[in-house]
Amino acid sequence: MRVKVTVMLKEGVLDPQGKAIGHALHTLGFGEVGDVRAGRVIELELDETDQGRALSRAEAMAQRLLANSVIETFAAEVLA
Amino acid sequence: MRVKVTVMLKEGVLDPQGKAIGHALHTLGFGEVGDVRAGRVIELELDETDQGRALSRAEAMAQRLLANSVIETFAAEVLA
Repeated sequence: MRVKVTVMLKEGVLDPQGKAIGHALHTLGFGEVGDVRAGRVIELELDETDQGRALSRAEAMAQRLLANSVIETFAAEVLA
Repeated sequence: MRVKVTVMLKEGVLDPQGKAIGHALHTLGFGEVGDVRAGRVIELELDETDQGRALSRAEAMAQRLLANSVIETFAAEVLA
């Protein structure tokens, strides 16, 4: 079973990467771009058949390793 | 309107970051983890009301800047 974990910075945490992307997009002529937030996505292949267990294990992995819970939030979803 | 662009490495492209995450998860006791693929997610606030236009502009941004089309694929989706 494949699970996708998306890790984003918490609201209010400065996102220099997002700012840099936004600035570059403006320079390239994409003037309609406002706020830009950058994050990470990790797709995990899990040897698991139960969706609930797969999700809770992915969340445990996020808490232990994939996300820095001080400044980041994460969301896990099962992929089809 | 908010659009999310997810950028992942193409199939077959070596993913050292994914390999490192997988190895670390095994070390932490998450033995059920198999293949791990790491990617980026960029959330864009666009001054646009038409979903179709917002999506096509986000795809143009991905082609011009957000993704390296040689080794990466991208997918854009409108967020609620």
